[in-house]
Amino acid sequence: MLPIKIYLCKMLENKDKSSTSLSELGEFGLIKHLTQNFKCNQTSTIKGVGDDAAVISTNKQVLISNDLLVEGVHFDLSYMPLKHLGYKAVMVNLSDIYAMNGTATQITVSIAVSNRFPLEALEELYDGIYLACKNYKVDLVGGDTTSSTKGLLLSINSIGEVDKEDIVYRSNAKPNDLLVVSGDLGAAYLGLQVLEREKQVFEVNPNSQPDLTNYSYLVERQLKPEARKDIIELLKTLEVKPTAMIDISDGLSSEILHICEQSKVGCNLYEEKLPLDPQVISACEEFELNSTTIALSGGEDYELLFTIAQEDFKKIKGNPNFTVIGHITEPNEGASLITRANQKIKLTAQGWNALKND
Amino acid sequence: MLPIKIYLCKMLENKDKSSTSLSELGEFGLIKHLTQNFKCNQTSTIKGVGDDAAVISTNKQVLISNDLLVEGVHFDLSYMPLKHLGYKAVMVNLSDIYAMNGTATQITVSIAVSNRFPLEALEELYDGIYLACKNYKVDLVGGDTTSSTKGLLLSINSIGEVDKEDIVYRSNAKPNDLLVVSGDLGAAYLGLQVLEREKQVFEVNPNSQPDLTNYSYLVERQLKPEARKDIIELLKTLEVKPTAMIDISDGLSSEILHICEQSKVGCNLYEEKLPLDPQVISACEEFELNSTTIALSGGEDYELLFTIAQEDFKKIKGNPNFTVIGHITEPNEGASLITRANQKIKLTAQGWNALKND
Repeated sequence: MLPIKIYLCKMLENKDKSSTSLSELGEFGLIKHLTQNFKCNQTSTIKGVGDDAAVISTNKQVLISNDLLVEGVHFDLSYMPLKHLGYKAVMVNLSDIYAMNGTATQITVSIAVSNRFPLEALEELYDGIYLACKNYKVDLVGGDTTSSTKGLLLSINSIGEVDKEDIVYRSNAKPNDLLVVSGDLGAAYLGLQVLEREKQVFEVNPNSQPDLTNYSYLVERQLKPEARKDIIELLKTLEVKPTAMIDISDGLSSEILHICEQSKVGCNLYEEKLPLDPQVISACEEFELNSTTIALSGGEDYELLFTIAQEDFKKIKGNPNFTVIGHITEPNEGASLITRANQKIKLTAQGWNALKND
Repeated sequence: MLPIKIYLCKMLENKDKSSTSLSELGEFGLIKHLTQNFKCNQTSTIKGVGDDAAVISTNKQVLISNDLLVEGVHFDLSYMPLKHLGYKAVMVNLSDIYAMNGTATQITVSIAVSNRFPLEALEELYDGIYLACKNYKVDLVGGDTTSSTKGLLLSINSIGEVDKEDIVYRSNAKPNDLLVVSGDLGAAYLGLQVLEREKQVFEVNPNSQPDLTNYSYLVERQLKPEARKDIIELLKTLEVKPTAMIDISDGLSSEILHICEQSKVGCNLYEEKLPLDPQVISACEEFELNSTTIALSGGEDYELLFTIAQEDFKKIKGNPNFTVIGHITEPNEGASLITRANQKIKLTAQGWNALKND
């Protein structure tokens, strides 16, 4: 695991004079330098970095997903170390492949970067990308590198493969299926709140040393999430094929609504079933936040949400990796939250909106 | 063909009051709205927009390429209409697939956009993307939409397929092979110079009406390039398989050097053979530029540069689509330009550097 350190400083502006400007290398020199340690190990990778396009050969179906990560919108470099950013950016993308019940095999990484970033900053970023590729056994096979007029932008593609009969879409959930989630919810959002608070403390007193002992899980979930490759493998071992699946990036309620809409079904979600880490509960008390709201709308959990047929329940029963949080209903029942007080509330997507007005 | 109009105005700031803000739709509403008219026609497209990943099925090898286009770096919206930008962004990406001798089949389009863009601006952008998809028979199968802190950024993937035995890399050019280019060179760069000049005139006198009659070809090459799908098809008809191929995005000399480096060969390029449109020659005179320099380093031509075995010469001889501009030599001879005065000059890459200091 990467050590979690909080850089509550404008690290990039504090670089010493020995830093190397990107323009010294030029675009092709830069790509070559940053990718020189990456080796292709997947048998499906025929050609990686270095030609007009990457070449992939597989007899399975090919999965392709893309995510953009924009500085100032998706991440704040005052507390997100670049190595963690590189790692997380890959996780966010691999998560989409696992959500199709696929195996991630390749990524491409494109960056737009302003000249305020020295080469050493990009090396840190690529160290994180390298670690992610190594841990998840994916090959870096291409990308683009250009300048930006402001800040850093990452565009990552994840490429995967899956047997036709194994693929899981969002659109096949059926009434009476169980609604299941891996891991726990809300921690990444609270980690962000903790880091934002420490940033404000730091801006008032630059000598302050944050004590994050009580928030270690929250901060790790924010700075170094893991895509749930292990869950896909576990489901295979347990011989459970979900009927529908999605990864939780925008918040549980938003993802449930995607499944309901695309499968043309309703659902009942039970508040008391929501899996919460003890640090989530204590941080919610401290920040005076409702833990159910955070679990439903926090986002960035990168857990898997899926539905399974009732007859598969015995295969996952008691497994600590899974929590049954509800069940699918007929479409006319709509998507509802059943509260602890047994009230039925219409589920709404209040997840993160990347297009909101600031 | 799209009509070429020069919008020498800050079109986005002149929008009338009826414009729609992006935040009104939200991310998913926006994606749905912008992609609603796109239909998937490729048999290899199993699932397009709307799940965690696109799903593609082919028994050929899969090609994947990515390009970033950044406002203020790659395009200037004061004279680049958004519809043209959308069209060009797709062309830039498809060009990479054709450069592998492949067939482009799908694209994904991700955009980061600041809130100064109304919905109507993105509709124009997607109109251009739609037209490109229609003309080149590619499916839009995915992407991401988010906000940016400044300007517009496009990240496009092109996906293609190719039979294993048809694929052409940069790395297989052999001594005595002929160096061939499609179309002509330098026009796109000069089109940019014309547009930049008109922008300056406009800034001094906003009522000026530019007369671009004498520059129509140059401006069209800059604002609406076409990827050379037709050349790939023509080569197939002529039964010519290039030994190496690359598309000309950064300038001829830069691309020749990529082929020489990756094929471990040298080359002689003949100045007198460089294909130049009459408008290129007259504009070079007017701007007091050396036409050879422009052809070598202008960039954005999106023509194909390739090498063929000597015995294939008879198949392309006299074909107006092709110009033989030189030949491949032993590696120790290096890459050289042979001038009209029969001087031998070392070829250097002075193409566009996206990472230069401004």
